[in-house]
Amino acid sequence: MLVPDAEIQQTLSAITPQDSEARRQAFARLDALTKPVGSLGRLEEIAAQYVGMTGRVSPAPLNPIVFTLAADHGVAAEGVSAYPQSVTAQMVKNFVRNGAAVNVLARHAGAAVRVVDMGVADELDGLSGFVNHKIAYGTNNFIKEPAMSREQACRSIRIGIDLAKHACAEGNNLLAVGEMGIGNTTASAAVVSVLTGRSVESVTGRGTGVDEQRLHHKIGVIEQALSLHRPSPSDALDVLAKVGGFEIGGMAGIILGAAACKAPVALDGFITGASALIAVALQPRCREYLMASHTSQEPGHRIALDHLQLEPLLDLRLRLGEGTGACLAISLIRAALNIYTNMATFEEARVDGALLREAGSHGRS
Amino acid sequence: MLVPDAEIQQTLSAITPQDSEARRQAFARLDALTKPVGSLGRLEEIAAQYVGMTGRVSPAPLNPIVFTLAADHGVAAEGVSAYPQSVTAQMVKNFVRNGAAVNVLARHAGAAVRVVDMGVADELDGLSGFVNHKIAYGTNNFIKEPAMSREQACRSIRIGIDLAKHACAEGNNLLAVGEMGIGNTTASAAVVSVLTGRSVESVTGRGTGVDEQRLHHKIGVIEQALSLHRPSPSDALDVLAKVGGFEIGGMAGIILGAAACKAPVALDGFITGASALIAVALQPRCREYLMASHTSQEPGHRIALDHLQLEPLLDLRLRLGEGTGACLAISLIRAALNIYTNMATFEEARVDGALLREAGSHGRS
Repeated sequence: MLVPDAEIQQTLSAITPQDSEARRQAFARLDALTKPVGSLGRLEEIAAQYVGMTGRVSPAPLNPIVFTLAADHGVAAEGVSAYPQSVTAQMVKNFVRNGAAVNVLARHAGAAVRVVDMGVADELDGLSGFVNHKIAYGTNNFIKEPAMSREQACRSIRIGIDLAKHACAEGNNLLAVGEMGIGNTTASAAVVSVLTGRSVESVTGRGTGVDEQRLHHKIGVIEQALSLHRPSPSDALDVLAKVGGFEIGGMAGIILGAAACKAPVALDGFITGASALIAVALQPRCREYLMASHTSQEPGHRIALDHLQLEPLLDLRLRLGEGTGACLAISLIRAALNIYTNMATFEEARVDGALLREAGSHGRS
Repeated sequence: MLVPDAEIQQTLSAITPQDSEARRQAFARLDALTKPVGSLGRLEEIAAQYVGMTGRVSPAPLNPIVFTLAADHGVAAEGVSAYPQSVTAQMVKNFVRNGAAVNVLARHAGAAVRVVDMGVADELDGLSGFVNHKIAYGTNNFIKEPAMSREQACRSIRIGIDLAKHACAEGNNLLAVGEMGIGNTTASAAVVSVLTGRSVESVTGRGTGVDEQRLHHKIGVIEQALSLHRPSPSDALDVLAKVGGFEIGGMAGIILGAAACKAPVALDGFITGASALIAVALQPRCREYLMASHTSQEPGHRIALDHLQLEPLLDLRLRLGEGTGACLAISLIRAALNIYTNMATFEEARVDGALLREAGSHGRS
C-alpha cells in the first residue's frame, strides 16, 4: 500500500494494542461480583473490553458522543436510491432541530450528537448546530470518474482524525459513528466488495428502500464502476478515492483518531462497516477499539463484520443508519460499566462467594 | 383441564386480545415519522405492540417495575445445583441492599425492583425491603412427593395476580418478572418438558453452573420425577403442583394479572419461560401481553420461547436470572416509545415525506 500523508501516518503509528493487563484486572473484578462467573455473558465482555481499550481499571463516568456525518454521492444520479439527493440536506436540518431518530435515541442513551457536513450537495448556509467540513458538493459519479481525488480521500480521513482527537480532548470516552447520505449504501457496497473480496451481488442490498428491479440495477452500476476503476484491494485510500464517499472517509478517520486516543468506537450500520474496513486496512490494530453495535438488514453488513471479526451486540432489523443502532449499543455499554462499577462483591455482600465462584468457574473461557 | 379456583378464573376471563385498532394507529404514526417506513425494525414493532397491549395510542410515561420472586426447591437436596440452598436467602439480602445485578440494571433502566419471598427456606425475619408471601419453607423434593399441593399452586398464582393488579393500580405500565431460587432450573426444565412435549434432555441445561456429570444427574432426577408423578400436559396447575415452584407459580400469576390489566410483561430467562408456559396454558390470550427480553444460555429457554411464538429482543449469553435480561429489554422498550412519541413527523420537519414514505413502503409487512 502507498503510504498516506504524514499526519495520517503519525496517527496510525500512535495506535497501540489494548492494555491486556487492565483487561485481566477487569475480569478479576467481574469475577468477584455477586453472580456466578461469566453469567452476565456479553455484558461482562463489554466491560472488560472497555477497560482494555481505555487502559483504565476504574473507568471515568461514561461521556459518549455520536458523530453523524453527512455527504452526497454523485452516483445517486444513476437512480441507485429510492430517494432524491435533496433528502440528505433535509435530514441534516432535521438532525440540528433534534427531530430525527438519532436525536431521540442519543438522548435516551445520554449521548451528545455532533452533525458534520462532509460534503452535502446543497448549501447549508444559515443553518447552525452542525460542523462544516464540506470537502465538495457531493462526490463525483463514480460510474464515470473516480468519486474523489486521492488528496480529498486523505483530507476526509484527516478531518475524522481531528474530530475524534478533539472529542477525546474534551473528555468524550466513547465515540460512535453514524451517517446520512443518499446513495451511500451503493458506495459502501463497492468498498466492502473490494476490501473483503466478496462479489458485488453478495454485499449489495436494498438500502433504505429500493425494489427488486432497482436492486439489480444498483448491482450493475457497482460492477461497472469496479471494472472501470479497478481499485486496488491492498490500497484502502485508492478504494476510498475511487468508489467511496466523504462521510465514509470521515468515519474511517474518526475510528483511527479514537483508537490513537484509546477511546472505544461504537459502529452503526453497513456504511460504518465500510469505514471500519478502510480504517483497519490502514492500521489493523484499530480493530481492538471497535464495538459492533448491531447487524443491519443490509447483507453486506454481516460480511463486513465477519471480515472484521466483530460480533454485533444487537439484531433488531434496523436499516436506518444515522447512528441509531450505535445509540442502543451505548446504552448496553453503559449498563455493562454500571455492572462493573456498582455491583456488590461477595465480600461486601457476605454471600457464599467461594462456592459461587468455584461453581461457576467453567463459565470464563 | 380442571377449572382453577374462582379468583383465578375471574382473572382469566378478564383477559382480552390486544387492541388491534390502537396498534394500527400506532403503525400509522410510526410511518409518518422522518425515516423510511419500517426502517427501525423491531423498535417500531415494540412500540406498536406496546400501544396494542395498553390500548393507549398516546402512551403515558413509562413506569416499569421488576418483580424478583425468590423461593427454594426441595429437589436441591438431590445435588442438582452447584450451589447450597442458603444462597437463595443470601441473595435476597443482597437484593434488598441494592447490591445485585438486577438492582444495578433496574436503576439503569429506570425501573423499580420489588423483591418477593414466595417460599425461601430460611427465615428472613428482621430483613426489610421485600414483600413476604412465603407459602412454605421451600417446595417438597419432587423426586419423592409432589412439589406442592394443588391449593398451594393456586395460592402462588393468586399471589402473583394480586401483585400485578396492585402494581397496575399504582401506575406501573410495564411489568417484568425475574427470580432467584437454587434448584429452579431443574423445576423449570421439568415444567417446560411437560408443557412443550420435548424430551427432558433437550430442555435441561447447566443452570448457573453444573458440570457435565452433574448435568447428567440432573436430567436423571427430572426424568425420575416425571415418571413418578406423570403430570398432565393438559392441566398446567397439575404440572405446577407436581414439579414446579412457588416463584414459578407466582410469576405465572403476575403474567395473568398484568394481562388482565392490559399491562405489558417483559419476561427474563428460562425460569420465566416456564412461568409463561403455565400462564398461556391457563389462558392463551395472555400471550399477547408478553415480550421476550432475551434468550438465555439454557437450551430449554429457546424451546419455551418457540412454543410461545415469541422472538427474543436480545441474545447476550446471559444466564443469571433475577430479572437482569428484562431490565435490558425495558431500556429498549423505553427507546422504542421515545421514538414513537418524540420523533418529528415529515410534516413537522418539512422533509420530502411523500417520496420517503412511498419508497420505503415495502418495509411494512
